[in-house]
Amino acid sequence: MSEFDDATYVADDGATSIHDGWDIGGNANGGYLMALAAAGLRRVAGRPDPVSITAHYLSPGRPGPAAVTGDVVKAGRRFTTVQGRLESIGDDGERRTVIQVLGTFGDLASNAASDFVAMNGAPPDLPPWEQCVPRESNGAVPVAMMDRLRVRLHPDHAGWVRGERAGVAEMAGWFGFADGRPLDTLSLLLVADALPPAVFNIDIPPGWVPTVEMTVHVRAVPAPGPVRCVFRTRFVHGGMLEEDGEVWDSTGTLVALSRQLALLPR
Amino acid sequence: MSEFDDATYVADDGATSIHDGWDIGGNANGGYLMALAAAGLRRVAGRPDPVSITAHYLSPGRPGPAAVTGDVVKAGRRFTTVQGRLESIGDDGERRTVIQVLGTFGDLASNAASDFVAMNGAPPDLPPWEQCVPRESNGAVPVAMMDRLRVRLHPDHAGWVRGERAGVAEMAGWFGFADGRPLDTLSLLLVADALPPAVFNIDIPPGWVPTVEMTVHVRAVPAPGPVRCVFRTRFVHGGMLEEDGEVWDSTGTLVALSRQLALLPR
Repeated sequence: MSEFDDATYVADDGATSIHDGWDIGGNANGGYLMALAAAGLRRVAGRPDPVSITAHYLSPGRPGPAAVTGDVVKAGRRFTTVQGRLESIGDDGERRTVIQVLGTFGDLASNAASDFVAMNGAPPDLPPWEQCVPRESNGAVPVAMMDRLRVRLHPDHAGWVRGERAGVAEMAGWFGFADGRPLDTLSLLLVADALPPAVFNIDIPPGWVPTVEMTVHVRAVPAPGPVRCVFRTRFVHGGMLEEDGEVWDSTGTLVALSRQLALLPR
Repeated sequence: MSEFDDATYVADDGATSIHDGWDIGGNANGGYLMALAAAGLRRVAGRPDPVSITAHYLSPGRPGPAAVTGDVVKAGRRFTTVQGRLESIGDDGERRTVIQVLGTFGDLASNAASDFVAMNGAPPDLPPWEQCVPRESNGAVPVAMMDRLRVRLHPDHAGWVRGERAGVAEMAGWFGFADGRPLDTLSLLLVADALPPAVFNIDIPPGWVPTVEMTVHVRAVPAPGPVRCVFRTRFVHGGMLEEDGEVWDSTGTLVALSRQLALLPR
């Protein structure tokens, strides 16, 4: 079993655990938490692909016992909408909601959709894999998750590690699993939050940038091979910022769009 | 009482109604439905501003009796997260979920936020109000809502009414209320879905473009005066499209970002 499948395993009754090793400085990554919740909720839905899924981040995801619970809001001909939550379970049995989720699930592979295509955009202009900069786990803030991933950043976007910010809030890179697990629609939720924040490339105040909410649209099932992704923040004001992501597969198909609302340090 | 306040009135017990006259060809507008749900849910939250709110659209909003119900998922120091729904109530008392909602509410006016600002974007380049094209209610598909609004489209984006599509999926315009009601954060949810779909300006297959999901980030309380907004679709494929919106107030402040996932006709 791949590391990601192991870390997103949810039993039939919703029992699961937030796995160690998918964190940033001790707090589980937001994309990992969304994928974990979606692994449970897509079973509730009875449909495999999170076509549109929103999570609100309510408390830190610390490793340990957890549960995914939810219910069907509507089962339609093409989509099923579910609401639910991922809760952590303390030593005393107390449950605490880590993320609250609302999602609509479908079956993208078997869906007889319109074949009309109009694209105003293309995959990010990334140098080949070999020329991009590996994202390591052992920086100033340990990013344990990077031992499990093969993330390589655009050389122009990787200088912030040395204090050299690109000056534009953009972060592009390659993403794959270290153990070679193929990408599917569930893992795209992890991809949506797996790169360093785009605002690390502008001169924001130092500190943590917590996610309030993230929404991912999964637009297609990814083809084999690593994906290219790019994240951009255009508007930082009022103590808030958005980060918009695009994920493109090896055939040049847009497979996911993401947007999150995050907070600036106060 | 203004028309919008009347149409979004929710009693303490959640009783409300989907008002006639906020529809497009008989179905209530998606932004109006979100605002109606938010009017009830922000009372549940005890905080006025929908900082991030997501609705999944499950059945058409037909005029008549309705109810907004929900509960607090987490009340924090700065934000309160609620989940809930807007249900229509049939003649036989049967309830049907129109939209399911997940939202985080705050108090933007009194919030002591970071004053750091970094903007990579500006309000849409709109001609003055007088030179923009009024959006009327009496087109091929009657848009009753337009009797209540003062929407004026960019002249370059208004030709689709005559079959002259701009060729780029963009729709920009001015928005205000016909009765002069000032804009607040609740009404920004209506703004987020009040212009014709941006894809009307490209050569998409004819037919209805139903919303699956819409998320709005309210970033600031709007200043007095009409707002300028722009909606763009970049990616149409697999039978789906996203529409991204920006809303800017009269002082040039970005007050809301929106994104919706919609379906192409099959």
